[in-house]
Amino acid sequence: MNSFKIALVQSVAHKNREENLKQAILNVEKASSLGANIVCLPELFLTRYFCQSEDTGCFDFAESIPGPATNRFCGEARKRGVFIVCPLFEKRASGIYHNSLVLINPAGKISGIYRKMHIPDDPGYFEKFYFTPGDKGFSCFETGFAKIGTLICWDQWYPEASRIVSLKGADIIFYPTAIGWRTDENELSKNNQLEAWKTVQRAHAISNGIYVVAVNRVGFEESGKSGEGIDFWGSSFVCDPQGVVVCEASDKREEIILADIDLRKLEETRRNWPFFRDRRIDAYSEISQRFIDNDPGTRN
Amino acid sequence: MNSFKIALVQSVAHKNREENLKQAILNVEKASSLGANIVCLPELFLTRYFCQSEDTGCFDFAESIPGPATNRFCGEARKRGVFIVCPLFEKRASGIYHNSLVLINPAGKISGIYRKMHIPDDPGYFEKFYFTPGDKGFSCFETGFAKIGTLICWDQWYPEASRIVSLKGADIIFYPTAIGWRTDENELSKNNQLEAWKTVQRAHAISNGIYVVAVNRVGFEESGKSGEGIDFWGSSFVCDPQGVVVCEASDKREEIILADIDLRKLEETRRNWPFFRDRRIDAYSEISQRFIDNDPGTRN
Repeated sequence: MNSFKIALVQSVAHKNREENLKQAILNVEKASSLGANIVCLPELFLTRYFCQSEDTGCFDFAESIPGPATNRFCGEARKRGVFIVCPLFEKRASGIYHNSLVLINPAGKISGIYRKMHIPDDPGYFEKFYFTPGDKGFSCFETGFAKIGTLICWDQWYPEASRIVSLKGADIIFYPTAIGWRTDENELSKNNQLEAWKTVQRAHAISNGIYVVAVNRVGFEESGKSGEGIDFWGSSFVCDPQGVVVCEASDKREEIILADIDLRKLEETRRNWPFFRDRRIDAYSEISQRFIDNDPGTRN
Repeated sequence: MNSFKIALVQSVAHKNREENLKQAILNVEKASSLGANIVCLPELFLTRYFCQSEDTGCFDFAESIPGPATNRFCGEARKRGVFIVCPLFEKRASGIYHNSLVLINPAGKISGIYRKMHIPDDPGYFEKFYFTPGDKGFSCFETGFAKIGTLICWDQWYPEASRIVSLKGADIIFYPTAIGWRTDENELSKNNQLEAWKTVQRAHAISNGIYVVAVNRVGFEESGKSGEGIDFWGSSFVCDPQGVVVCEASDKREEIILADIDLRKLEETRRNWPFFRDRRIDAYSEISQRFIDNDPGTRN
């Protein structure tokens, strides 16, 4: 049980929700036939990335947990005997919607829910309009293969999130994602963004001695204004506890990539890079401040 | 005043302390003649890396702050009109020694002291024997050019340290360093270490929107056992707030590299990547735990 297989489903989102659902079910089936024990789908894969504009009508896309989508994927998980990391737009109550995911186990039950904690808001990514910040904190779930941590997209940029999940015992963190380039950005900026996105996640793997898995959507989606939109950059990847990228998808195509996860590699890495041992837990409380104005130590 | 120049002094440590001191003085002179406003020397540059073995005699290398070395560098800073980030082995009291640095200002005064907070202990790096962990927390100092954060070597692996220094307003973090490859390591392991070291520091730049500067020693130093030792890998570098490496030294040679720091780049990056805005400071208190055993959220 030291080793198991995961699948990253890098997919295009079509306009039709039912088409996306069917495609995802087929991808889970395919991944399990290739031997995957855990299959991860991209953030909000059931719809196009509607956060390119603010539209109250889009709250219609949200659904409850459990609900129609989780019921379908619970059935599929039981049928295929796999875990599924299944992101969805959650309606918790009228006026309370979350960017969530459920972990579904091979018995077809929901093992856990994670609600995205860090909510972005940038031109083209108007998520603060749609998503109430998560209130369940940072999570980690036992699967029998490994403890898996789950975070979502913008959480990728926060070392606090990956650290807490790791302190809870995560061997691997899954980041379902929807990130891409806006059409109005230049090539240098595009390259810097993709490189930064990979670098910061590889660093989570290194500083915590864990596997990190990013699962992104791919393809161009129009914003509604002619010619404008987001080119989702795919590039889903897995890196090992030393931050070495062990597999990586294209930035243009749909694909399922599989990776073997070996917990002996994690054990070996942490023996040689014993970062957890030396943490100065007596000196970290300032992390919980927004900003530290006029610190007495900051003098000339 | 938005832009200023820094110098990274990547040097070999010789057996003779006086030779290392003279070389460092010459390097400060050279860097200032090239226009540097802030000059950073490597960790413990006055001596060979004595932590390859445990020897009570090596405590003789330690000196007080202020003391002979800081007096020399204070004089040099005043003469050249530069800031100097000057690491040294500090004797604070009999039995209390620190791996420290002082920031010296162009008036020739000590502006601040930082004492290494995270102390490693690995084969060949027996630092826990020599260095009492720092008790001054994580520091940031005003220079007039920018607020500069100072950390030392092993601190590089801890996102908590770079985060707190950044929350205190740092625009740039200097990491004087002594890191290299042991002779008994294989090529793949060596490459992974160097790459991880760069990646984790570039990620500090990205997640905090700051400049990061690593200043390493270079050259082979014997451990005492025939043929064994550490090949210090140099590779000193500067990266910008998007994690882009803007200059980098060789892994084999002594050199002084200079970089222009532009705070407008920092402002622009943080406007476009507003990570500080969305931090969940209500949810980070678990960072101060050693490990989170049996978290109720960790269920199957």
